[in-house]
Amino acid sequence: MSRWEPNAAERLGVAAVELFADRGYEDVTIMEIAERAGLTKRTFFRHFADKREILFRGQDAYREMFADAIAGAPAEATPMEAIGAALATFAAGFVDDMREFLAKRQAVIAGNSDLKERDLLKAAALTASMTDALVARGVKPPTANLAAHVGALALDDAFQRWLHPGNRKSMAKLADQALRQLGEATEALR
Amino acid sequence: MSRWEPNAAERLGVAAVELFADRGYEDVTIMEIAERAGLTKRTFFRHFADKREILFRGQDAYREMFADAIAGAPAEATPMEAIGAALATFAAGFVDDMREFLAKRQAVIAGNSDLKERDLLKAAALTASMTDALVARGVKPPTANLAAHVGALALDDAFQRWLHPGNRKSMAKLADQALRQLGEATEALR
Repeated sequence: MSRWEPNAAERLGVAAVELFADRGYEDVTIMEIAERAGLTKRTFFRHFADKREILFRGQDAYREMFADAIAGAPAEATPMEAIGAALATFAAGFVDDMREFLAKRQAVIAGNSDLKERDLLKAAALTASMTDALVARGVKPPTANLAAHVGALALDDAFQRWLHPGNRKSMAKLADQALRQLGEATEALR
Repeated sequence: MSRWEPNAAERLGVAAVELFADRGYEDVTIMEIAERAGLTKRTFFRHFADKREILFRGQDAYREMFADAIAGAPAEATPMEAIGAALATFAAGFVDDMREFLAKRQAVIAGNSDLKERDLLKAAALTASMTDALVARGVKPPTANLAAHVGALALDDAFQRWLHPGNRKSMAKLADQALRQLGEATEALR
């Protein structure tokens, strides 16, 4: 039986993070994740290659979103303005009721070195796709590479602040602040 | 029997890279690496936690080298000058007869996603230790973080160029060029 399950990937992702947060990443089986989501192991493997990947659901789509936003920035936009447009598009998708889930997910990743490594690989791929999108706009490779890394730093900084329990600012606001602060930092480098 | 073996870690590292390059990382056993180096499996585990770690020998020492060089830069040095001093210290250790070994090592890492992830984790730890060393000099965290990332980008760029078969430039020269180029790129960001 292989019927269509609405939101199967999302349900599996939520079930996995809850189980990992409660009992630790290592101890949870794929069968348990599928059962908690009311799905089968087979459905799990239709969506994810392995247990690790379930924590990085949607990352390929984010890469495309960033690349598209950079490509779609006005022709006269500077590299940092194009990066800013991509961060703003991304940030618009962050709503308050995702905070608890994303905080748990981050804690699971932070607690396991294999997951931290996979997280870095995904981040590196995102940075590389921002670089490529800037080069496609005619930005010179060293500048594109630097701008993409500044964008990744701003994103990381904003995300950590957004996750903070006391935070009341939107992800869009935090990303904009982080990018401005890094822009000022470039002037203090030398 | 547990006698002292001179240069055991280095001999194991060289043996491992030769075997991985010839037969693929996955297919080589720790026993084979130890045998090729004329050592025992037990000696292997005195130096390395697992097969993956043998490719990242010396990385902890590099982190310290970078941190020490940044701490030891003249008080009036700018963040980028302090990073430049660290890169110059590091680059001084690169001699031509290491090129073949390091090129093989890079090819092994590039061919395996687990190794690429570990490589990124090591690079992230190095960047974090540069950031910490700059903050300890009184540099503001966003500037320190940015400078450390620019340093990491320069290092990566210089290393790729140094490994290139046709390259005749020293690592020191390439690192200096990469850092200058990124310095110019900061001005084209916005």
